[in-house]
Amino acid sequence: MAAPTIKDIARRLGVSVGTVSKGLNGAPDVSERMRRLILDTAVEMGYRKRQGPSGRKRACILVNNMDYSRPDDFGRDIVLGFGQGASQMGWDFEVVEASVAFQRGRSYESFLLEERLAGGFAVGFALEDPWMAEFAHTSYPTALLDNVITRNPLVGSVGTDTDEAMGLAIDHLRARGHERIAFLGGSTGSHISNERMDAYRRALRARGMVEDERLAAWGWYVPEAADEHVPAFLEAGATAVLCGSDRIAVGVMEALRARGLEVPGDVSVVGFDDLPLAEQTTPPLTTLRQDRLALGKSGFQLLQALEGGLAISRTTLHAALVLRESTAEARTRVPAAAGASGSGGTDEGR
Amino acid sequence: MAAPTIKDIARRLGVSVGTVSKGLNGAPDVSERMRRLILDTAVEMGYRKRQGPSGRKRACILVNNMDYSRPDDFGRDIVLGFGQGASQMGWDFEVVEASVAFQRGRSYESFLLEERLAGGFAVGFALEDPWMAEFAHTSYPTALLDNVITRNPLVGSVGTDTDEAMGLAIDHLRARGHERIAFLGGSTGSHISNERMDAYRRALRARGMVEDERLAAWGWYVPEAADEHVPAFLEAGATAVLCGSDRIAVGVMEALRARGLEVPGDVSVVGFDDLPLAEQTTPPLTTLRQDRLALGKSGFQLLQALEGGLAISRTTLHAALVLRESTAEARTRVPAAAGASGSGGTDEGR
Repeated sequence: MAAPTIKDIARRLGVSVGTVSKGLNGAPDVSERMRRLILDTAVEMGYRKRQGPSGRKRACILVNNMDYSRPDDFGRDIVLGFGQGASQMGWDFEVVEASVAFQRGRSYESFLLEERLAGGFAVGFALEDPWMAEFAHTSYPTALLDNVITRNPLVGSVGTDTDEAMGLAIDHLRARGHERIAFLGGSTGSHISNERMDAYRRALRARGMVEDERLAAWGWYVPEAADEHVPAFLEAGATAVLCGSDRIAVGVMEALRARGLEVPGDVSVVGFDDLPLAEQTTPPLTTLRQDRLALGKSGFQLLQALEGGLAISRTTLHAALVLRESTAEARTRVPAAAGASGSGGTDEGR
Repeated sequence: MAAPTIKDIARRLGVSVGTVSKGLNGAPDVSERMRRLILDTAVEMGYRKRQGPSGRKRACILVNNMDYSRPDDFGRDIVLGFGQGASQMGWDFEVVEASVAFQRGRSYESFLLEERLAGGFAVGFALEDPWMAEFAHTSYPTALLDNVITRNPLVGSVGTDTDEAMGLAIDHLRARGHERIAFLGGSTGSHISNERMDAYRRALRARGMVEDERLAAWGWYVPEAADEHVPAFLEAGATAVLCGSDRIAVGVMEALRARGLEVPGDVSVVGFDDLPLAEQTTPPLTTLRQDRLALGKSGFQLLQALEGGLAISRTTLHAALVLRESTAEARTRVPAAAGASGSGGTDEGR
């Protein structure tokens, strides 16, 4: 696809090319509201100025191990929000796919220097990624999504409030009679997966609920992991499964159905993220919402604050529980163990 | 639902539009009782007046139980930073002394409405303060210093990274041979004092260090508390005392000197805050710096973000350890117990 031009933006908005040009350049005779609209549209359409007029600061979002091209991709709104935040503050920005191979090929700082970048926002990085060690000592302002590096005043992190999220999900399930709640997390070797697993355990402990090692497992962010773990959860008496992502939840619902169990009649399922797909599952998924547009915008704002000398170590966003149809009252009888077909339950709520 | 207007309030109360308008603007010919009724009704109906006569947005910093007039007062730079942040973004602001009596006299929301404020930044609030319960449910953007309220997307908190701070102090002392490190905290009934006590314990645990209940106590932010606790710390073999504030550290150093012990020759002392007085103590105090100007600025930025719809739950700032002369290598021999005069040690570093 050809890079969009000013003409394309003008056509999309139904305004003149001159207006778009003025809006992009911050001319005083374009209203603030129109300027915002033009900038947001330009970002949304992928418009880039190859080289900003001298004096404009440049930032990059470094995307690793995360899809961001389609609406259902976790990274899509994060990239969008970052770009909108940058544009609003008059910064140029670029999106960089920073694979492990890419990171191995050059140092973080030489890359920034070469690209004349004021700093970076790293998303999707795993603990063992080559640049993670560099971030700990970098002299460039650097924001991290879902990773935490302490003691460098130029590095801060942004993410969703994990303890709040887990508390919301567990209180919701508990109010419906669930006491044995399993958690199928993401992947080990990821800071945020570890953090969610810890928060799940803390939330159970704080409420005096059952902590059973058989109810916690790693799902590696792939639906297929559910097939391995769902039978064990059922065996251990789980009446609800909390998942480390919406995709994992999709896998869990399929694994339950394959065993003749109904969601939520037999087992309740809660996702994490609230991707667009969560509305389209059967049944639609109750899930913990991460406002990804806000995460992207906050990532930029954090980077800008660090660049301005404000040593923020962490910004967390409120989580929200989006209620749909994958959760219900716990069955008084624990669901049949793995492999059982037909639980004999009524089709409640169907 | 459309935003309620003055007409709606008048209709609800069965009075004229003029009376409501006068009541909202504090005109002298409306009785105090009627004015209160109008304000309460307006709040209940969600009526908003978020701009002052200048057309600029207005925010307030609510100061409770905290001095801010002199350079050595903890609140001084916080108030300053808040005002600087507001001015830079073109907001008006005011400083409000929100004592417990003041809070009892009116509701938080009717106060904001009456003063045409878009939101507030609450500093120095204790857990049992009357307005704390209101903050949990307020529909006004509200930022809190050193207090945490979850699950209200309009409320966020700002503070210094407590775990980072405690880790820095304990690693510094440990590298100098200290294994029995006492902590004299602030006051119970304060969120931040509890958080620091928890962080102290977590830091010891994470490093496999001695956790001894006799080494942890509450100092109520007054130097005099040291006289009570320092002898017990010494009895329990403490070679270093970490303090919940610089003022507490001053008290600890005096209590040690009164017992013939040298700082840092016999016992190392670390403060918290880095108030200007920390440079002038004898010896100058090694302390954990809270950048209060940045905390004030971040408080405003958080308030502004919340007002703009960005649901930030928490912003933490990096801590820094400021090395001065109140810490040194641990004595291989544990200092003499309370009441001993003259430790027989050399006057190292004097």
